[in-house]
Amino acid sequence: MTEPMSDRTTLHRYPQRGRHDRATIDAILDEGLLAHLGFVHDGRPVVIPTIHARLGDTVYLHGSVASRAMRTARTLPVCVTVTLLDGLVLARSGFNSSMNYRSVLVFGDAREVVDQDEKRRALDRLVDHVLDGRMADLRPHTDLEMRQTTVLAVALDEASAKVRSGGPADDDEDLDATAWAGVVPLRLTAGTAEPAANLRPGIDTPTSVSDWHR
Amino acid sequence: MTEPMSDRTTLHRYPQRGRHDRATIDAILDEGLLAHLGFVHDGRPVVIPTIHARLGDTVYLHGSVASRAMRTARTLPVCVTVTLLDGLVLARSGFNSSMNYRSVLVFGDAREVVDQDEKRRALDRLVDHVLDGRMADLRPHTDLEMRQTTVLAVALDEASAKVRSGGPADDDEDLDATAWAGVVPLRLTAGTAEPAANLRPGIDTPTSVSDWHR
Repeated sequence: MTEPMSDRTTLHRYPQRGRHDRATIDAILDEGLLAHLGFVHDGRPVVIPTIHARLGDTVYLHGSVASRAMRTARTLPVCVTVTLLDGLVLARSGFNSSMNYRSVLVFGDAREVVDQDEKRRALDRLVDHVLDGRMADLRPHTDLEMRQTTVLAVALDEASAKVRSGGPADDDEDLDATAWAGVVPLRLTAGTAEPAANLRPGIDTPTSVSDWHR
Repeated sequence: MTEPMSDRTTLHRYPQRGRHDRATIDAILDEGLLAHLGFVHDGRPVVIPTIHARLGDTVYLHGSVASRAMRTARTLPVCVTVTLLDGLVLARSGFNSSMNYRSVLVFGDAREVVDQDEKRRALDRLVDHVLDGRMADLRPHTDLEMRQTTVLAVALDEASAKVRSGGPADDDEDLDATAWAGVVPLRLTAGTAEPAANLRPGIDTPTSVSDWHR
């Protein structure tokens, strides 16, 4: 794939933070548990959190949360944004304080997936994106579930990543300040898995669940 | 404030997950470190991650990341979405699998803050939102920094919250499945604070930093 560099994916601020290589983009999409889907409804923006998953050059989204959008258009201009928060950057000034993060913006026209094979693969991937291998432990999606679910596909043709890492970048004249400066690293961590109240006796928590991490 | 219930903040799916009370909305906005700001550019949606902070009935956003938007309109229709991820909900089917989360959508016309007192209060709050009391340890924003920063304000007139909590809601016919089911709780946790390489000797890490948590 050629590196996209259209106006919308060109970074207008802090160009040194921009990454357009697919390896960076894919890694962020695959690590993120959550996307924010933007679309236009009655001329105004709507941004909803939703689960996403990547398969090759396509990002898939789950339909039901987007159904309000799906009523307005068959192909829908969207922006899918995935952001990972890596740390608080505490500088000696508010102006230079920041966050360490990795984010991807994907622009495109979402299409509804109507091919049943593609739809099933996408739904399986949405499950496995959260917990790798999970779908193999579950029954297949029923035909009714398939009909009740809308799947949207967005091609990774126009995507960009932004990454901010490292310590604060203070102005020289602030370096004598008495305030502490540095980074507080952040990560999403899993607590102890909580079995469902109606879990059948004798089913132990598998290590894929007890050791889940991102 | 009356509870907003316009068409855009009415929940069309899973109405039992909707919360419109301000206490819930404020708590989510105040805990979230990151917002996703949606706006329309050339008729298409754009969603960018950005720091936010609430002061009373207003959500403030930092300008520089929104400057592409600011060039197109003085008052800008926006959607500000803040999402907190609380857990993986692993059901016995893909269809019933979900996430526990809390989210807020704020719809409104963003206005650029031009009053210098309001602008300074907003910038101070954006710093303190990340680490309470931090601004008191820092020098005031300079006039140049104030000029270099755009601050947007969005009123909390039209906001809604969605909350999903608890275990999986499986279909009765799936309860005999052998797959483990339950919740993996998630939270954003802080690692050991990393002092800046150029931190003056003798400045210890304050407890507000070493004990930072959300």
